[in-house]
Amino acid sequence: MASAPTRDDKFSFGLWTVGYNGTDPFGGPTRNALDVVHVVEKLADLGAYGLTFHDDDLFAFGSTDAERQTQIDRLKQALADTGLIVPMVTTNLFSAPVFKDGGFTSNDRDVRRFAMRKVMRQLELGVELGAKTFVMWGGREGAEYDSAKDIRGALERYREAVNFLGQHVIDQGWDIRFAIEPKPNEPRGDILLPTLGHAIAFIDSLEHPELVGLNPEVGHEQMAGLNFAAGIAQALYHGKLFHIDLNGQRGIKYDQDLVFGHGDLHNAFALVDLLENGGPGGVPAYDGPRHFDYKPSRTEDENGVWESAKANMRTYLLLKERAAAFRADPEVQEALAAAKVDEIATPTLNEGETWESLAADRSAFEDFDANAYLGGKGFGFVRLQQLATEHLLGARD
Amino acid sequence: MASAPTRDDKFSFGLWTVGYNGTDPFGGPTRNALDVVHVVEKLADLGAYGLTFHDDDLFAFGSTDAERQTQIDRLKQALADTGLIVPMVTTNLFSAPVFKDGGFTSNDRDVRRFAMRKVMRQLELGVELGAKTFVMWGGREGAEYDSAKDIRGALERYREAVNFLGQHVIDQGWDIRFAIEPKPNEPRGDILLPTLGHAIAFIDSLEHPELVGLNPEVGHEQMAGLNFAAGIAQALYHGKLFHIDLNGQRGIKYDQDLVFGHGDLHNAFALVDLLENGGPGGVPAYDGPRHFDYKPSRTEDENGVWESAKANMRTYLLLKERAAAFRADPEVQEALAAAKVDEIATPTLNEGETWESLAADRSAFEDFDANAYLGGKGFGFVRLQQLATEHLLGARD
Amino acid sequence: MASAPTRDDKFSFGLWTVGYNGTDPFGGPTRNALDVVHVVEKLADLGAYGLTFHDDDLFAFGSTDAERQTQIDRLKQALADTGLIVPMVTTNLFSAPVFKDGGFTSNDRDVRRFAMRKVMRQLELGVELGAKTFVMWGGREGAEYDSAKDIRGALERYREAVNFLGQHVIDQGWDIRFAIEPKPNEPRGDILLPTLGHAIAFIDSLEHPELVGLNPEVGHEQMAGLNFAAGIAQALYHGKLFHIDLNGQRGIKYDQDLVFGHGDLHNAFALVDLLENGGPGGVPAYDGPRHFDYKPSRTEDENGVWESAKANMRTYLLLKERAAAFRADPEVQEALAAAKVDEIATPTLNEGETWESLAADRSAFEDFDANAYLGGKGFGFVRLQQLATEHLLGARD
Amino acid sequence: MASAPTRDDKFSFGLWTVGYNGTDPFGGPTRNALDVVHVVEKLADLGAYGLTFHDDDLFAFGSTDAERQTQIDRLKQALADTGLIVPMVTTNLFSAPVFKDGGFTSNDRDVRRFAMRKVMRQLELGVELGAKTFVMWGGREGAEYDSAKDIRGALERYREAVNFLGQHVIDQGWDIRFAIEPKPNEPRGDILLPTLGHAIAFIDSLEHPELVGLNPEVGHEQMAGLNFAAGIAQALYHGKLFHIDLNGQRGIKYDQDLVFGHGDLHNAFALVDLLENGGPGGVPAYDGPRHFDYKPSRTEDENGVWESAKANMRTYLLLKERAAAFRADPEVQEALAAAKVDEIATPTLNEGETWESLAADRSAFEDFDANAYLGGKGFGFVRLQQLATEHLLGARD
Repeated sequence: MASAPTRDDKFSFGLWTVGYNGTDPFGGPTRNALDVVHVVEKLADLGAYGLTFHDDDLFAFGSTDAERQTQIDRLKQALADTGLIVPMVTTNLFSAPVFKDGGFTSNDRDVRRFAMRKVMRQLELGVELGAKTFVMWGGREGAEYDSAKDIRGALERYREAVNFLGQHVIDQGWDIRFAIEPKPNEPRGDILLPTLGHAIAFIDSLEHPELVGLNPEVGHEQMAGLNFAAGIAQALYHGKLFHIDLNGQRGIKYDQDLVFGHGDLHNAFALVDLLENGGPGGVPAYDGPRHFDYKPSRTEDENGVWESAKANMRTYLLLKERAAAFRADPEVQEALAAAKVDEIATPTLNEGETWESLAADRSAFEDFDANAYLGGKGFGFVRLQQLATEHLLGARD
Repeated sequence: MASAPTRDDKFSFGLWTVGYNGTDPFGGPTRNALDVVHVVEKLADLGAYGLTFHDDDLFAFGSTDAERQTQIDRLKQALADTGLIVPMVTTNLFSAPVFKDGGFTSNDRDVRRFAMRKVMRQLELGVELGAKTFVMWGGREGAEYDSAKDIRGALERYREAVNFLGQHVIDQGWDIRFAIEPKPNEPRGDILLPTLGHAIAFIDSLEHPELVGLNPEVGHEQMAGLNFAAGIAQALYHGKLFHIDLNGQRGIKYDQDLVFGHGDLHNAFALVDLLENGGPGGVPAYDGPRHFDYKPSRTEDENGVWESAKANMRTYLLLKERAAAFRADPEVQEALAAAKVDEIATPTLNEGETWESLAADRSAFEDFDANAYLGGKGFGFVRLQQLATEHLLGARD
Repeated sequence: MASAPTRDDKFSFGLWTVGYNGTDPFGGPTRNALDVVHVVEKLADLGAYGLTFHDDDLFAFGSTDAERQTQIDRLKQALADTGLIVPMVTTNLFSAPVFKDGGFTSNDRDVRRFAMRKVMRQLELGVELGAKTFVMWGGREGAEYDSAKDIRGALERYREAVNFLGQHVIDQGWDIRFAIEPKPNEPRGDILLPTLGHAIAFIDSLEHPELVGLNPEVGHEQMAGLNFAAGIAQALYHGKLFHIDLNGQRGIKYDQDLVFGHGDLHNAFALVDLLENGGPGGVPAYDGPRHFDYKPSRTEDENGVWESAKANMRTYLLLKERAAAFRADPEVQEALAAAKVDEIATPTLNEGETWESLAADRSAFEDFDANAYLGGKGFGFVRLQQLATEHLLGARD
Repeated sequence: MASAPTRDDKFSFGLWTVGYNGTDPFGGPTRNALDVVHVVEKLADLGAYGLTFHDDDLFAFGSTDAERQTQIDRLKQALADTGLIVPMVTTNLFSAPVFKDGGFTSNDRDVRRFAMRKVMRQLELGVELGAKTFVMWGGREGAEYDSAKDIRGALERYREAVNFLGQHVIDQGWDIRFAIEPKPNEPRGDILLPTLGHAIAFIDSLEHPELVGLNPEVGHEQMAGLNFAAGIAQALYHGKLFHIDLNGQRGIKYDQDLVFGHGDLHNAFALVDLLENGGPGGVPAYDGPRHFDYKPSRTEDENGVWESAKANMRTYLLLKERAAAFRADPEVQEALAAAKVDEIATPTLNEGETWESLAADRSAFEDFDANAYLGGKGFGFVRLQQLATEHLLGARD
């Protein structure tokens, strides 16, 4: 049985997640709004350590300065009262009509300038609240129609905006980094930086790439049919996993934002194994927040909201237990060795080997018995997957 | 721990499944062919009860009568020696060049006649071997291009063929039924009868619909992004689940034919729960073969083939255990009641109620408090899903 | 150049289509509501012949009887003033919180009764307005989680509801038929009757199947990766194309509701060819409304709304021209013949042929040269598709 | 009408494309092999300028040195006779059993060394034949099961291999560059570097990134539901479009390799517009080979093979005509301006503007009228898409 979540588990939730009121493309709210103080108190009770938010989650778009400050003060007091922290903040550049063609990459330059200012304001608030990560999900940066958007021009404007914000942070000496959140589509027909790969490629083109990483979301990569755990491994390989959004998605369809583990369970298992055991010597490969970016189903009332919040944390901890048992099982160790999984860590070239020396190694080519792989030299991958499946099912305890 | 499979579990395998040699669109065989006698012996050892096959699996397309008979005799002897049975047979109308535009619905009438004869021959062999189900997977019945196929004409020819075969069975007094296997695409761009829904609609148009049902395959429905367990429920609702193909698929992509449970594990759990506990009073809703139509991964040698065969059966039995525990858990029972899952069994109308009397019931409309559903009357579906998840993970034993 | 639309083209629009205010899962309205009278006048000006609507489109959910009647009267007057008709109506069983688990198949029986009453009310209004089709899109009839919904129970309640409504229409002697609109998912994780195939199978189980047909939508079938034109051909084959929803979708993703032709253009061409030229002797295969169920993109203002309405009609008429030219082209006729497309219309069996006589026809099997299909007897489908492509591109005029 | 293709159009074909024999997962060859000399002669006749090939296309895996040389000599003679060139070559690291777990990233180190040698050999041949691009499609570099592959280890081995080959080219002073071809899945369940984004991110981590770019394929990106034209724009933005594979794909499914333009026609139009008119001032944005990597449908005989080859070139040239007319149309120019498509080229910041000065610009935020975007300031994107559609349909000539 999984233990109860503690703050050491670094579980965080978006204010917009438990606060989701049930609106979707075919219906309005089924729940009333939740007050931020109530949310902070409940999350603290349930064992979370952090709350995250968009500016518009806390104070409605168009709030007066006074209204905004009241909400900020109420949040600060609640944080002080509970010990919850704000590890990440983000800006809403997608809900208001002004952002209908995006924020940083709207065809309308006035909108782009407004977007930059809106981000600056929330960035400053985030720093004030101690956030270490500033997430940028460019959900409206995209198009439905190919001729409506000059993609290269839009990437250049995106780059201008992120360079600008990076310089701002450097100039201010702030201790915060940026994390781009990719998504392939919805609400735009196609979104710029549709996968984590596209986003890393973009980041590498920035003036200060060291300031910018990723906030990949389970469901977003899976909406492109991609393997999330494999994507996270590539992000780690490039040193770009700055933050992570955990949730569930059942295949290629609209963005479901289910509870973590209520989607592709095999991939969730592989992900937790990677995060918790993928570092050198089996230590965690990632030590940041385990952030749940999900939506409590529209069918639920407030009680269901908190049940769903608990479910996210509980499933994560269960999978962490399963992954630990998987790694500790001698039969798994034997199967991994038989499948040569660790042999991938050995360089292909001998130490100091050049192309001339490889070319001279007859054992590598001329005398190599390629035919031995027909009918022989099986890898045993299916057996390994079955062992993983049985551990996932708790059937080998 | 799951018990070992026995013949009472009715596990069957296609000869082409364990016999798959590894050929795929980008590579040739990685394994040598397996002899049918060896396959029968191994499957019997592993606890299976049945073997199924296409004609061309047992004797190559174009075999002489003598070659064909030799193989049939060898199979019969192996069955006699092991006690394995042949619960189902099927015809290959897709591999040979003659079927490049399909069998029953090729634009070329000569091909259609040849296809019918090929099916008649295999049908007779199936009856002789005691098969009770004759599967028809029309993998080449389709098109890549819209103008290349008159769909209504093709459906009419499909119908002609199935009507013809049905009459043949009736005339002969044979105890065998047909099961159509839908698939959305691959190897054709679009295949006729792409989902189990389309196939039932087609069956309802036949002269003898009672002779024809479905053989749905997990991966085929999931290739269209459809929920397999929900589809099977509809097939059961219409009395059309004649046979079933179990395997695993990881989303919308090429046909993967993974081991059962190595794809969408939540849906596999729901499927086993439905098959095993979905009948009246919780008895099995389906009592036919649990047929595995999968491919041992191309990376495996023969040892991996048999490991994969065992994995299919073992995962099925584990999920059966998990589903039984789920149903038996009082908290699950309580959550199901809270979610009103059983209330769907109560007719919406009162006994004898007409539209006039419903129209007169003010409590149904005029006095009904629709507003109570805003902020209240949550269904608790997420909690239920979390209970299912924890049972699936073996975390509530 | 396509001619301007006229009422003979039978173009109709949903009030909710041009009236869409831009709300989506990530943002609120970008446009103000349009008044129904204004919509009727504009559609009449643009050449449409019909307006369709959900009850809640015309009068908000929870309207008083007086508010409702005012809106009905305003609509009637506008219809009288313009000559526009209401060929179809439908009920909204998906937006209000009360329908969060569906209407006809909510787990909550009280909701189901309320849903039936709401439908009866709108059905009566539809009859009063002269509508000949009553569409039923069960967008909330479904589930996110497998254990949350007894699918067979839900299908039985769905069936109860449709049987009830059919009896109501029969008892009243009304001249209206029902059309079920399938959809695979969104807003529910999986929706009951996910494709047109599933819906026809369901309809065949009804007490009065003759009263119930389909209203398939381009994007809905394409969200399951299915070929829409092929699906419509099967619907026509079974006599179930009662109504049709035209729009555009760019692949498997969220429901885009683009302008017709702004999605898969090849398939749109094939569809128009089928509808306009697919009847016996090349007459239209369908004579009902060409109904556009789309959403003007959220980026547009009201001018863009009307531009998008025009675009739907204009593209349809252009494709109609292209399809006529395709059919009339002698080279196309020759290519169709070479591809034996028409040979599918010839029965596979000779007149009066039985299985015994087919079995005796050595030319069908024993003497048939299957090997001739290797390296020969190509179908020429690619050439045919290229001819279709060039006609679509207007490159063969 | 499109003009006939000439060598200036730089159309090239893979030997494996027109040479495809029809084998697929469910059937063997339907056509006999084509001799390379015949292929060269036919392609030259049809107006192509280049032939490309994998080593195993020209001489079977396991050929003796003499057999290999004979084929090379025959190819050289044919090239000399026809004037066709070999602009690109590539190595087959996916078909033979030895590569069942990949080439550069097989868990088996011996296989990796063999793979490097095989590539070195083909690289040298490519240089000898004058090829300027060496494509690397890592179709078997991947896994079906998450625990079977250490993704970071595999990326490190991939990197080692590409670094090694780059050094080889530098040391030899060869004038050839590498182009990585991404693909999301098939034949592996998940492939490393699944999209062009992931591949650019990987390239940026290399020792000599300037030597390595992309060879994106239409269908591969579309198998992940991604917009190919948008992806190519990002590749151009990062200077990484070294080569391109043109073909057709109808949605998220198995790799179809249809004729270019027989898939998503809107996106093909946008792509050709980008390639031909996307450079500064409207010149071509890409001047490399237009390489068709497609498969003539399995239903075709050799005549159909050549018809399909012609169809690729003809459709490209037609789309080039359509794109030119689109760009030249004054109404399109006006609509582009109204949609502010060109305004994305204007920097968001004023020249020399800092964050301090932007923060001080009240017009950017405090005085900015965000509300004007509700009900106003529409972008007119739908009108623009309709103009594109009508040009694509040849309806505005």
